[in-house]
Amino acid sequence: MRVTAVPLTAQAFTSFGDVLDDAASPDYVINDGACARHHDRARLEVDSAGRLGISVFVSRCYTLPLTVDTLERHPLGSQAFIPLSREPYLVVVAPDEGDRPGSVQAFVASSGQGVNLHKGIWHGVLTPLGNDGHFAVVDRIGPGENCDVYRLNSPCIVEALP
Amino acid sequence: MRVTAVPLTAQAFTSFGDVLDDAASPDYVINDGACARHHDRARLEVDSAGRLGISVFVSRCYTLPLTVDTLERHPLGSQAFIPLSREPYLVVVAPDEGDRPGSVQAFVASSGQGVNLHKGIWHGVLTPLGNDGHFAVVDRIGPGENCDVYRLNSPCIVEALP
Repeated sequence: MRVTAVPLTAQAFTSFGDVLDDAASPDYVINDGACARHHDRARLEVDSAGRLGISVFVSRCYTLPLTVDTLERHPLGSQAFIPLSREPYLVVVAPDEGDRPGSVQAFVASSGQGVNLHKGIWHGVLTPLGNDGHFAVVDRIGPGENCDVYRLNSPCIVEALP
Repeated sequence: MRVTAVPLTAQAFTSFGDVLDDAASPDYVINDGACARHHDRARLEVDSAGRLGISVFVSRCYTLPLTVDTLERHPLGSQAFIPLSREPYLVVVAPDEGDRPGSVQAFVASSGQGVNLHKGIWHGVLTPLGNDGHFAVVDRIGPGENCDVYRLNSPCIVEALP
């Protein structure tokens, strides 16, 4: 299966999660007019046994085309990735269809765009493109198993836009 | 009063909050060795009436020296700033001393460094340096008044390192 990675937009990503950027209009202005606030733009989810935390991930980079043969999901909470570095990164996702991934889609997030994956959305591992990437990650901290892994029947080849 | 802004380090910032970067050793490695996780690096705080959310702030830039005549604090929760843009930013903070700010300190955060201000720490407004700044902000969403403002008796002049 081949999938073309397309630019990330909130509209295209809506069934998988939230895009954290300033593309939409701000909700209000603070600091005597100096700062626009795009308010409460992520659906953060965590079970009652867990809590939200912020971690920092440093990942090696990947290149396209990329073969993806495994997806994972976090059944107990959402997971937000906020890039601290400037390189774009790939976001591979699939809806859940009866505890297995449905149709795979791929997006390229630009520098300056964070993403928040909703609870239970299948996704690939963190994949910065071009250079190694640093990310602040807002996700569930707590006991219990919060990572399901699914090996795809046939690998997915993620390609760049022609 | 004059204060010199010094480079932000976790050690120097420890009484005010957390620095979100990869300066310390990672806690473990994920994704088949591809990604280092610096785990749970922020003390996130929120009262029972509120919840944590992620917003996006876009602020105009400032230059040093900067006159700071007002500080604020959030009594109901922590507030983390994670830069989506690459410019450094100024972090002006003061401990609480009987419901008023104690001695003011100033730090310059580099690109790639987020900060999490602990609940109740007095701080200046978001102040990107050099260019306008975009930030993901993890803070309390909820009802009630969560911003105390204090006007300093004498303004604080924040200067760059010589």
